[in-house]
Amino acid sequence: MPNIQTTIPSIPGFRVAGVRAGIKKNGNLDFALIVSDSPGTAAGVFTTNQVKAASVTHNMALIAGNASRIRAVAVNSGCANACTGQQGMDNVHQTARWVAEHIDCAEDEVLVMSTGVIGTQLPMDKIKRGIELATDALDPSNWEAAARAIMTTDTRPKMVAATLEAANGKPYTVAGIAKGSGMIAPNMATMLSVMVANAPYAGALGSLLRTAADETFNRIVVDGDMSTNDTVLLLVNNESGAVEPPVGQYPDAVRAVSRQLAQDIVRDGEGVTKFITLYITGAPDSESARHIAHTIATSALVKTAFYGNDANWGRIIAAAGRAGIPLDPERMTLRFIPGESLERMDESVLLFANGMPTDYREADASAIIRQPSVLAWLDCGAGDGAATVWTCDLSHDYVSINAEYRT
Amino acid sequence: MPNIQTTIPSIPGFRVAGVRAGIKKNGNLDFALIVSDSPGTAAGVFTTNQVKAASVTHNMALIAGNASRIRAVAVNSGCANACTGQQGMDNVHQTARWVAEHIDCAEDEVLVMSTGVIGTQLPMDKIKRGIELATDALDPSNWEAAARAIMTTDTRPKMVAATLEAANGKPYTVAGIAKGSGMIAPNMATMLSVMVANAPYAGALGSLLRTAADETFNRIVVDGDMSTNDTVLLLVNNESGAVEPPVGQYPDAVRAVSRQLAQDIVRDGEGVTKFITLYITGAPDSESARHIAHTIATSALVKTAFYGNDANWGRIIAAAGRAGIPLDPERMTLRFIPGESLERMDESVLLFANGMPTDYREADASAIIRQPSVLAWLDCGAGDGAATVWTCDLSHDYVSINAEYRT
Repeated sequence: MPNIQTTIPSIPGFRVAGVRAGIKKNGNLDFALIVSDSPGTAAGVFTTNQVKAASVTHNMALIAGNASRIRAVAVNSGCANACTGQQGMDNVHQTARWVAEHIDCAEDEVLVMSTGVIGTQLPMDKIKRGIELATDALDPSNWEAAARAIMTTDTRPKMVAATLEAANGKPYTVAGIAKGSGMIAPNMATMLSVMVANAPYAGALGSLLRTAADETFNRIVVDGDMSTNDTVLLLVNNESGAVEPPVGQYPDAVRAVSRQLAQDIVRDGEGVTKFITLYITGAPDSESARHIAHTIATSALVKTAFYGNDANWGRIIAAAGRAGIPLDPERMTLRFIPGESLERMDESVLLFANGMPTDYREADASAIIRQPSVLAWLDCGAGDGAATVWTCDLSHDYVSINAEYRT
Repeated sequence: MPNIQTTIPSIPGFRVAGVRAGIKKNGNLDFALIVSDSPGTAAGVFTTNQVKAASVTHNMALIAGNASRIRAVAVNSGCANACTGQQGMDNVHQTARWVAEHIDCAEDEVLVMSTGVIGTQLPMDKIKRGIELATDALDPSNWEAAARAIMTTDTRPKMVAATLEAANGKPYTVAGIAKGSGMIAPNMATMLSVMVANAPYAGALGSLLRTAADETFNRIVVDGDMSTNDTVLLLVNNESGAVEPPVGQYPDAVRAVSRQLAQDIVRDGEGVTKFITLYITGAPDSESARHIAHTIATSALVKTAFYGNDANWGRIIAAAGRAGIPLDPERMTLRFIPGESLERMDESVLLFANGMPTDYREADASAIIRQPSVLAWLDCGAGDGAATVWTCDLSHDYVSINAEYRT
């Protein structure tokens, strides 16, 4: 995996801005604009929710018909523009038209994203003001403002970049911003993310992004809800002058950036106090492994036990058992390991084997679960299927944040 | 529907007890015994969890082989006896053997149920003591003690009875107790319940119980988790002397008792402050309707919005949209109605229609959602499928209860 950093440097060929358009009542940054200096190629993965925000419908159509001529992505937070009917659709087109006028391109070269409350119309006077302010503020180094402007209940901006070298010695950058926090479940793009790269990709950009998203953004769970607006976009131009990036390096960088952004979304999930890696092996196949992991990751009982620092592993076994996959408890083993990988295996505790608890010491299990990061390794003893899913606990703060979101 | 009452009178032909065996650390009642004076016929529905408690395996085998000669049901709370291997199985058999010795029947005439923490062995000295105490306390009027003895995090006992009259003028009773509270999701018996009747049923008892459970116990959601121990038992003897209960009356009574017990489980769910009826119509078929209802009922975002008295209906539409059922938002309508039925339709508020919010007044929606019971009626405009699911909100208390359960 390439080295990644959690700030984004100036990327030649892209200019960005994040401004206060007044959409959010609290006066925070709420409108971002990302502009490619030359027409870029875009790929996207979108929510599979039957109820799609107007901007999702717009972007899907644009990427299906005009993927090789994209100039800009406009993103607002504070209003999801979902469940808004024809007026919502008209507002997306108006947004794209205004952006096009300001940066001198065609309306169908502008992608639009929205996040926030469902069921209210976009405040178009504020969107217009946001576009004006953002156009003035465009700069290659403004990534942090853009990352902040797309936040809703996120507590910190999420930015990741990898800088690489092409065959002709030219440096190029793959970078991305994301917002997450709630309504996070893995099934096609589970939040908003915009990634960019300023070097050409030789293969099919759509399949590169789908593969990367499937292994990263689609492997995270905060609360099991899937949004109407979930979108990951990747916009690529040729402004670095890089020629023939080494085979494998480019996809690796896209995957590494995606993975870091996805994990950052979990770490900053609503009310999260603990980062949990679920590592499932020995399932009948990888799809089963993933389904078992997802069932555990969405279990309120598992999540509250982690929140309470309670090594109540029986809830993990019970959640696995209701995933609908044939399993034999006698062949299952469950182990807790501190951290996010198998590196600290020598500090692990085997909790369950041969259909019953092992003779582990409660103090040892408790010591692991009190760590800020815990890996739970469940081997099903039923095949070769494996999957990793990243998730978090369910805390009082999650309830507070979501009980009071609109008020 | 027959009239039901929420206490259970003496039922001729059954004797019950609820005692303190010392399994629960807090000294509460924790062992119940229900004895039929003559061999009864039993039916059961059991968890579909792949990880089944030892007692579930025992009961499934017994009902498959010996359903027409059941004398007793022994229930302990405080220990689920799940994930306990061969020793757990041996302990179930030992429990049945001791009960059989005390009430003078065969070991294979005794059903056993357990509820509590997963992954610890039954404390057999305490089980033995519980059986001795319970045998001494057996009495036809002891139902409340039995209902209390099967509670875990429940805050109140759940008892329901219907008294009916057979063709020969003899009164007979259909009654049941249940415990619920957490790990409640609809998929084959989602908690523990024992129902009894002292009149013969002419049809197939198993299919009577399955139908009733499917329309009641399998239509409730507290947190979406399914237990390793979920069981509903129905034990019927002929001690009332009732002959030929009117056709339809008996199944109606079983369904009414089941429904009231199931709803009581939701009302007393962990941390529950609001009782929510989800009424889905216009789905492609009834299975789709049920799946949409279940997806809404398990949405953490929907549940926290209800907890916060926030009429954030967009979360309901978004949850319906991710249920995996083809839906057209333009044809969907969503309406809130105070109470648990359509009775107060004239006080309802239409929130969403034609793909966008209606011009309802926020104060009107807010007034409904502040009620202790709210019905959300979602019409999908896509067919004739309908389903009702009963659920609740997700509160701070749910998190507290489950973060601190074992400690």
